[in-house]
Amino acid sequence: MDNAKLQKFNTLKQEIISEIKPTEYEQIKLEEVTRKLIDHIYNVIKKRDLKDISVQLVGSAARNTWLSGTHDLDIFIVFPENTSREELEAIGLEIARDVTKIADKYEERFAEHPYINLQVENFGVDLVPCFGVSDSSKIKSSVDRTPFHNEYVKSNIAGLFDDVRLLKQFMRGIGVYGSELKTKGFSGYLTELLVIYYGSFENVLYNAANWKPGIKLRLGNEEISTILIQEKKPLLFVDPIDPERNVASAVSLDKLCEFIDAARDFLESPSKQFFFSKKGNEHNKEYLIDRMERRSTGFIVIIFDRPDEVDDVVYPQLYKMERSVTEMLEMFDFKVMKSFSWSEDVGLGNKSVVFFELITSRLPNVKKHFGPPVWLRDHAQKFKEKYSDDKNSFNFYIEDGKYVCDVLRQHVNAKSLLEDRLKTCSLGKHINESINQNFDLLENDEVLKIKNPEFRLLLSKSL
Amino acid sequence: MDNAKLQKFNTLKQEIISEIKPTEYEQIKLEEVTRKLIDHIYNVIKKRDLKDISVQLVGSAARNTWLSGTHDLDIFIVFPENTSREELEAIGLEIARDVTKIADKYEERFAEHPYINLQVENFGVDLVPCFGVSDSSKIKSSVDRTPFHNEYVKSNIAGLFDDVRLLKQFMRGIGVYGSELKTKGFSGYLTELLVIYYGSFENVLYNAANWKPGIKLRLGNEEISTILIQEKKPLLFVDPIDPERNVASAVSLDKLCEFIDAARDFLESPSKQFFFSKKGNEHNKEYLIDRMERRSTGFIVIIFDRPDEVDDVVYPQLYKMERSVTEMLEMFDFKVMKSFSWSEDVGLGNKSVVFFELITSRLPNVKKHFGPPVWLRDHAQKFKEKYSDDKNSFNFYIEDGKYVCDVLRQHVNAKSLLEDRLKTCSLGKHINESINQNFDLLENDEVLKIKNPEFRLLLSKSL
Repeated sequence: MDNAKLQKFNTLKQEIISEIKPTEYEQIKLEEVTRKLIDHIYNVIKKRDLKDISVQLVGSAARNTWLSGTHDLDIFIVFPENTSREELEAIGLEIARDVTKIADKYEERFAEHPYINLQVENFGVDLVPCFGVSDSSKIKSSVDRTPFHNEYVKSNIAGLFDDVRLLKQFMRGIGVYGSELKTKGFSGYLTELLVIYYGSFENVLYNAANWKPGIKLRLGNEEISTILIQEKKPLLFVDPIDPERNVASAVSLDKLCEFIDAARDFLESPSKQFFFSKKGNEHNKEYLIDRMERRSTGFIVIIFDRPDEVDDVVYPQLYKMERSVTEMLEMFDFKVMKSFSWSEDVGLGNKSVVFFELITSRLPNVKKHFGPPVWLRDHAQKFKEKYSDDKNSFNFYIEDGKYVCDVLRQHVNAKSLLEDRLKTCSLGKHINESINQNFDLLENDEVLKIKNPEFRLLLSKSL
Repeated sequence: MDNAKLQKFNTLKQEIISEIKPTEYEQIKLEEVTRKLIDHIYNVIKKRDLKDISVQLVGSAARNTWLSGTHDLDIFIVFPENTSREELEAIGLEIARDVTKIADKYEERFAEHPYINLQVENFGVDLVPCFGVSDSSKIKSSVDRTPFHNEYVKSNIAGLFDDVRLLKQFMRGIGVYGSELKTKGFSGYLTELLVIYYGSFENVLYNAANWKPGIKLRLGNEEISTILIQEKKPLLFVDPIDPERNVASAVSLDKLCEFIDAARDFLESPSKQFFFSKKGNEHNKEYLIDRMERRSTGFIVIIFDRPDEVDDVVYPQLYKMERSVTEMLEMFDFKVMKSFSWSEDVGLGNKSVVFFELITSRLPNVKKHFGPPVWLRDHAQKFKEKYSDDKNSFNFYIEDGKYVCDVLRQHVNAKSLLEDRLKTCSLGKHINESINQNFDLLENDEVLKIKNPEFRLLLSKSL
């Protein structure tokens, strides 16, 4: 970068940081709430005369890498290593339930253990019990790793807090942030490790611009284990506290490539818009109809009640459905140009959607049906008997030595095909149940009956 | 076959034979004309004091395997082996020209040598000069083989004349008779050899019903030469007078299979219609339009002036055109369901036609254009620069790690594609010249502007 560009770049960074760095007020508020919660938990422990239990704030709040406007606290209740799982779950829940007294609202959830999610003074708090193992190689459940991650990042992140914030916000803006099964992108911890590894926000981008899928990164110097290499993920970042674990295993090929692509573009001409995607810019109905007509392809949407499950359960099933319906459409000669899946957020609606763009949603009445080679006499004879006088057959002839019959196509439009055979597609358990209840099909501009801005944004991106 | 069926079969054979066997009058007439021509030639030879030249009738007329209604005579003028090619051509033509004095009309033609085609009293006569070699292994030009073929068949065909006639007529009826490049079927000589080999008309059919492509037949017991085996033709019948020659080399896979198929059908339920195809049954316009609409596919015909050449020159170029235009159409995503080529006979019109049936003749305005993988930075960058802001680009995105751009399709209908790019297709010399002069495109029911019954029959067979 020349000097002028560098200066512009630094000004831009400062501008972004000033928008995403928590304010002093936010910082104090977070510390207050954290203190209040931890004190309350220690009181419960004391009151119940429990021994050797400690409480600790983990996650981005503890590491000073959180973003302004996000108010999430992860508080871990750490039990002695030799506690039984039953005891940990029982006592952990008991303590957490006591804390709900000072919460505005709360919900019991379940990951590897049961845990509680609270709302306290506008903060979302996860209270999670875990085993306090002496060494990260001895963890008894995956959450036990978190305190070690916390420790590792805290000891290595000094001076790089803002770089982490910039990278997280950049990834958010371009849509690759988040390791949930919906997004298949970069987790917060991975972002922190990338900054530690490359030393700065811009160094991450400089290097990422030259990444190739299959790239392998590690902070230590040990050999990378065969297990990790055989995993063949697009990105491998060895967990510094667990050499058998790939921190980037969730990152899909396309999210990796989108990051590489955006890194190049940003370095070429840095601008604020990479950090703040234009939300709500879903385009109006007239614009969308115009685009659809100008493409002159066929559009069809399957819409049904969202299963009452979290995103991490719903999205993999949606993606599976997208794949199996695509296969079915193509088996019947409807060529899929593009597809995507989307679901309204729990609480904000109750629909799930799988969208398809087809080269054409209408096919001719006939199709060629190839039979066996004429010289395989028995097979040939059976085929001929079946088709040569069939009322749904057009003509019967020989091509490249094979019998061919032009038969009436069962489905000349994609909608009737889906009405008829959607239920035969391989679907996940919960979606299968929902589809068996009911589903609707929207064709072409009927697709715009779905007014949700997030859906409209996805649609407009695909046109 | 049970007795009743056998009796019915024999009655049918007799009925067909009575229709196709030349009448006594035809037979006498043929002998008369032949005698007259041969006498005339010998007179010319005598008058000009030429030495060691003989004259001989060859072909089906000489072998008593000709069909009633066909009036073709092949008369060969056989020169001594040591005659030079120039002398043979000059003197051969000189003699033939003298014969034209008694002809109603005549034409000089050219195959391997110049020869003359005469019309005499309703007979079509080819007067062909050849070398009278002592042994079939010493032939100097391919026509020299004919007298040997003649000799071979005459010595082996005794008692099988009607069987040959039945087989020829059967092959005519089902459309596989003729080894010209238009038909790619069975020659008269091959038909005779098949009857000699299998012993009767019905035995040919019984055996053909179980043929498989790659079948190898020979009348002698010698090993089949490597050259012939490597040729890999659908049917191999070793020429009994030339072990290096495949009499069946013209037979295409589909004509072979059509014969196999018809043989089975005929043996299953013998009937007269196999022998006499319904000519002129081209169906009326309304029927054809109805069929075309019921198929709801796209039809397009390229029509242009037939090059002023014989079928054996025109048809290979038409077939080549059919293939290369199909490739071009499919390259632009127009999927060809069926195609055929056809040309009016010389003298009966002057158009050639290549016909295509397409799954659809209209495509959407956009198509996906795949670029390089994102990680091949230089290529990727070039592609992105070219397409991401192109005015003909719809959207630009990443799929399976590759850049993809939805671009405006150059040709959304097959007609405009052909108008624009037909001349870029690989065409034969003469068709290329004709196309460069002019061509027309007929779409859907415009195809019925072509009223020739032979074309209409081909069309109706394909619907």
